[in-house]
Amino acid sequence: MSITSFNPPVRTLMGPGPSDVHPRILAAMARPTIGHLDPLFVNMMDEMKVLLQYAFKTENALTLPVSAPGSAGMETCFVNLVEPGDKVIVCQNGVFGMRMTENVVRSGGVAIVVQDAWGQPVDPNKVEQAFKENPDARFLAFVQAETSTGAYSDAKTLTKLAHGHGALVIVDAVTSLGGSQLEVDAWGIDAIYSGSQKCLSCTPGLSPVSFGERAVEVIKNRKTKVQSWFLDMNLVMNYWGGGTKRAYHHTAPINALYGLHEALVMLQDEGLENSWTRHTNLHLALKAGFEALGLSFVVPEGSRLPQLNSVTIPEGVDDAQVRGTLLQRYNLEIGAGLGDLAGKIWRFGLMGHSATPKNVIFALAALESVLTELKAPINRGVALDAAQQVLLAKGY
Amino acid sequence: MSITSFNPPVRTLMGPGPSDVHPRILAAMARPTIGHLDPLFVNMMDEMKVLLQYAFKTENALTLPVSAPGSAGMETCFVNLVEPGDKVIVCQNGVFGMRMTENVVRSGGVAIVVQDAWGQPVDPNKVEQAFKENPDARFLAFVQAETSTGAYSDAKTLTKLAHGHGALVIVDAVTSLGGSQLEVDAWGIDAIYSGSQKCLSCTPGLSPVSFGERAVEVIKNRKTKVQSWFLDMNLVMNYWGGGTKRAYHHTAPINALYGLHEALVMLQDEGLENSWTRHTNLHLALKAGFEALGLSFVVPEGSRLPQLNSVTIPEGVDDAQVRGTLLQRYNLEIGAGLGDLAGKIWRFGLMGHSATPKNVIFALAALESVLTELKAPINRGVALDAAQQVLLAKGY
Repeated sequence: MSITSFNPPVRTLMGPGPSDVHPRILAAMARPTIGHLDPLFVNMMDEMKVLLQYAFKTENALTLPVSAPGSAGMETCFVNLVEPGDKVIVCQNGVFGMRMTENVVRSGGVAIVVQDAWGQPVDPNKVEQAFKENPDARFLAFVQAETSTGAYSDAKTLTKLAHGHGALVIVDAVTSLGGSQLEVDAWGIDAIYSGSQKCLSCTPGLSPVSFGERAVEVIKNRKTKVQSWFLDMNLVMNYWGGGTKRAYHHTAPINALYGLHEALVMLQDEGLENSWTRHTNLHLALKAGFEALGLSFVVPEGSRLPQLNSVTIPEGVDDAQVRGTLLQRYNLEIGAGLGDLAGKIWRFGLMGHSATPKNVIFALAALESVLTELKAPINRGVALDAAQQVLLAKGY
Repeated sequence: MSITSFNPPVRTLMGPGPSDVHPRILAAMARPTIGHLDPLFVNMMDEMKVLLQYAFKTENALTLPVSAPGSAGMETCFVNLVEPGDKVIVCQNGVFGMRMTENVVRSGGVAIVVQDAWGQPVDPNKVEQAFKENPDARFLAFVQAETSTGAYSDAKTLTKLAHGHGALVIVDAVTSLGGSQLEVDAWGIDAIYSGSQKCLSCTPGLSPVSFGERAVEVIKNRKTKVQSWFLDMNLVMNYWGGGTKRAYHHTAPINALYGLHEALVMLQDEGLENSWTRHTNLHLALKAGFEALGLSFVVPEGSRLPQLNSVTIPEGVDDAQVRGTLLQRYNLEIGAGLGDLAGKIWRFGLMGHSATPKNVIFALAALESVLTELKAPINRGVALDAAQQVLLAKGY
């Protein structure tokens, strides 16, 4: 056996995540490792909390990155809040709503599932109906930005609705944080989780979470122990807790945290609202290009995530062949459809550092060239100009 | 608010982990991020399995790094194997045995605790007795290398003993993997977990695990679902599974895996047994220095981990003052005692890339200088030569 160092190629990442990681963030990850109880590292953890509070628009004290990917952030919310027998209304309009249901069940809770078609946002009327039928529901769980389809649901309205029925909300913001409007305090979101590798443009592996006061009360007053020791916020909050006296829990992923810290400093320097606007503007440019090509969006206008653009694959075009060619010839990664949408849609991410004029124009050019080669039924020679017109109008 | 980039100092890490990370590994972490379903990344995952099988000395197909720190690796073993009501004999001779007990309880199991004093290895006679009193115990769990004390327990004997009673073993090898003899297949270890930031000298955040055939059978034939979705090996094995058809589970921490891959390539190039020998040799040099200073070891000879050297703090010496001075003046991190040993012992790590002649001689010099300044009762001017004699004898 003799395996050698792994030297990955330079891809352009326009799938559902990870997104392109800025060289500043990659460089941060390579800084010298120091101890996780080092006073300087502890100070960095304090800064991280402030930066995450900024990104979430919250003053929640319990705001920190879970030391594992977004799926673990999801699990953190459910295992800490849901106790055996608790009813949870779960909105399912894609893969991640289904995963939430799985988490409820494994936490011993009872999932009341509200279904919407994949590609559609969560329908508040159905949720209202579910609360009427289940007045004892303790939680409402939904995905603000459904990565499997690109649908954006109305977190503000859904949260208000849940609170009107005395329930707390658990929100998946994996793909929205940093890219779309999200106001944890103003909307009163009780528990939320995200991922590092989407609009924050960091490498995957960390999951920012935030818990409001009511959620913290629930966690502190559980009748049963949290089933996960690793994700037990009662323990984790003492590790990430304020002050100089920290209780050792686990060993934090030091260098990954360097990367997230740098990513959040960059977000702070750009300005959160500016980042939202950038994602929207570049989405509009990409959209203009797609529509000029003759491609149609999966999600209805008004509910589209700027950072995840799902379009229907033109008839007769082989999904895998197109994605394979884009990857091999142009080092461009785009996303496939999941579940029933596999082979039927492509998902173009415009997340974080991937959301640039360069990537919009490059992706359109690459896609047009490959579809032209395959004699696909598209409009040729018009997409780039359509996109450029939007870029110019938006001041790029 | 304006937070700037975090630029850590260059420390020498001689605590209980993380250990010094080699520049090759840091550089690997900064390589371009590619997609976690990219064919090149999938190929890298296959290489990672082979490299981990080499490090564990196993042919177990289910050998992979859990996408979270060692604590999550521990939890992975327990939540996948232990079902409600299962009896688990847990050996407690330090912090990590206690954490195992916590994991058994949270998995719904019944923990039969075998106690040994902190600093002592696990006593097989007590374990034998526990099996006699609990012939229905399904698992024996113990820590091969107890990081909180530096005690090395006899994994081969304990595994044989458990098998004689029809039980499977769950072994904590967080601090031993790559640094001390460990033979998963030859000893018949059923389930084992480790960490990336100890003798593999990678950054923290990943937990290599390996499950033998009998353990996999247990996982596949559970009566209940694994309580953790994120750590459910039935799902994770399809993500890390052989072949080109992988089922998406979570997003792997891409760049962290680049780092671990590089660390394992370096281990392969050095040779596993050579690495064990290096750890032993440098331990002997450090030990000669400590004994010349007049410091005594916490763990009896014969049960000492070469990579974690616990010594008693000389009378009248302030623990925090010494560690603080070493950190501030020399950028040298050493470990404090935990639990009842807090303030009473220091833990000097010699793990992975930290295990060098340079670090041995530097740590002794720094410690002697600070203890001299504090007028501590030590023998002066003899430690460096004592260490050097060992280094010379070992061919350094």
